[in-house]
Amino acid sequence: MSKKIIGIDLGGTSVKFAILTQEGEIQEKWSIKTNILDEGSHIVPDIIASIQHHLELLNLSAEDFIGIGMGSPGAVDRFEGTVVGAYNLNWKTVQPIKKDIESALGIPFFIDNDANVAALGERWKGAGENQPDVVFMTLGTGVGGGIVAEGKLLHGAGGVAGELGHITVDFDRPFDCTCGKKGCLETVASATGIVNLTRRYADEYAGDATLKRLIDDGEEVTAKTVFDLAKDGDELALIVYRHFSQYLGIACANIASVLNPANIVIGGGVSAAGQFLLDGVQKVFDENTFPQVRTSTQLVLANLGNDAGVIGAASLVLQ
Amino acid sequence: MSKKIIGIDLGGTSVKFAILTQEGEIQEKWSIKTNILDEGSHIVPDIIASIQHHLELLNLSAEDFIGIGMGSPGAVDRFEGTVVGAYNLNWKTVQPIKKDIESALGIPFFIDNDANVAALGERWKGAGENQPDVVFMTLGTGVGGGIVAEGKLLHGAGGVAGELGHITVDFDRPFDCTCGKKGCLETVASATGIVNLTRRYADEYAGDATLKRLIDDGEEVTAKTVFDLAKDGDELALIVYRHFSQYLGIACANIASVLNPANIVIGGGVSAAGQFLLDGVQKVFDENTFPQVRTSTQLVLANLGNDAGVIGAASLVLQ
Repeated sequence: MSKKIIGIDLGGTSVKFAILTQEGEIQEKWSIKTNILDEGSHIVPDIIASIQHHLELLNLSAEDFIGIGMGSPGAVDRFEGTVVGAYNLNWKTVQPIKKDIESALGIPFFIDNDANVAALGERWKGAGENQPDVVFMTLGTGVGGGIVAEGKLLHGAGGVAGELGHITVDFDRPFDCTCGKKGCLETVASATGIVNLTRRYADEYAGDATLKRLIDDGEEVTAKTVFDLAKDGDELALIVYRHFSQYLGIACANIASVLNPANIVIGGGVSAAGQFLLDGVQKVFDENTFPQVRTSTQLVLANLGNDAGVIGAASLVLQ
Repeated sequence: MSKKIIGIDLGGTSVKFAILTQEGEIQEKWSIKTNILDEGSHIVPDIIASIQHHLELLNLSAEDFIGIGMGSPGAVDRFEGTVVGAYNLNWKTVQPIKKDIESALGIPFFIDNDANVAALGERWKGAGENQPDVVFMTLGTGVGGGIVAEGKLLHGAGGVAGELGHITVDFDRPFDCTCGKKGCLETVASATGIVNLTRRYADEYAGDATLKRLIDDGEEVTAKTVFDLAKDGDELALIVYRHFSQYLGIACANIASVLNPANIVIGGGVSAAGQFLLDGVQKVFDENTFPQVRTSTQLVLANLGNDAGVIGAASLVLQ
């Protein structure tokens, strides 16, 4: 029997686990709740106990695995196998994860940050079609990303290659970004960015669109509300949709003019808007790319959903 | 004696040659005029004859070399070793360069496009300091570039990774670009782009700046004229300089937000403006990058000058 891999996707709410073949097929999948109490000190012991428990259940041992890969939030030192500053895990000090896991389980351990790992997953088994050049962009609460170029995951000189959320795209009326600068893609294309745009254009809008009424009534408006209303032709929602598309389309076009990847894979919660989202972005992308890029770089939706993390984590073992 | 490399930088005016050590030190250097007559059919025979002549002079033979590397304009097929569509060489049909040179000289031959090769040169022995992540941008008649990431030269899905001139940066009053779209970096940051900006702002300018008088008198104004006058405090030249800096600074910032290279190396004829150019760009770069990028990506001037091509070409042999 060929040896297997364990993939771990560590998040602030849950830790997802999978046992995969070396071809990236998931054979077993489970998850546990992330216990962030006591400065996150239970997280690694819980991960170790959960793996031990499942290996026993499945009658497997360390010898059946070539390695464990993990994606983590925070600042990851992939050489030392440590994480620091993962605030949604309450990890403020350096966590020696590789050392703890390897000594408890006796299986080689590899780690990278969560957006990079999701990029590897989508590139390997998802919408990236295992091409050598793939950019992954995740539109969630923020905007993150990861880049595979000539088959290699890029990290950059300061470890922040692929942090696509801080590309400047809004020059006219830039919102402040949490990073300290203004006009970042994240301020207009994340879930919170779409709400920013909605508030901006609602203020100026004088018609009787449903979205306007929701805002004026103080109802909760999310990215999903906006896309659903835009699909139904709501006038204000369409204004927001067109501006969102313009910003995201320019960012994708400029990324493609630099890297010319085979695919720019768009994932994260906001991408649930699906083909409608892609259509708006594609139009702006086509207007802002020169012919050789336009015909060789495709915009596509992510298709692995929550599995991208564990699959990409597993692929770290094979790099 | 350790074996050597031949580097060739093929341009529309001259062909530059160098014999280098495997450490990238130039030992001999010469050049010939590029004869583009008869559909460029003399170019490759001239290159072969010139190498044969110099090997005889230097008492060297094929056995003394591990390979020949060449940078070429046009669309390069680096696997087949061919070039097509190099209009400044009059090469309209596919040129089987690798086949011709290897059969005549008996030395392995490698080729890539000229901007990529210059990027490799600056990265290896120049301002790139042999870092694994270096972006090279050349500001000449047009704007070109090349990217080395995780130690590998990027080509992209359609072979146009690093074509940095077609990043969209001008949204308000975009000039048409030769690529068919509008607002490209090349339309505002190349030598011709600076003249575009000068004409735009001269039209609106009502003062008595020297640059305004030159334009009104129909004198020839080049990028050098503009930078020289701006350094002297000419009011219109400073307006052009600030807009140029804004566009180029945004492009550099967004490239850095995607790739986080150790260095963005700025070369080409326009970069002769030196530290003055860099200072303007750096200010905008700092305003448009988030802290981890700002502190880990440096803007620097190219420092190999005309040697970047032959040095980078030689490095193709070692890749």
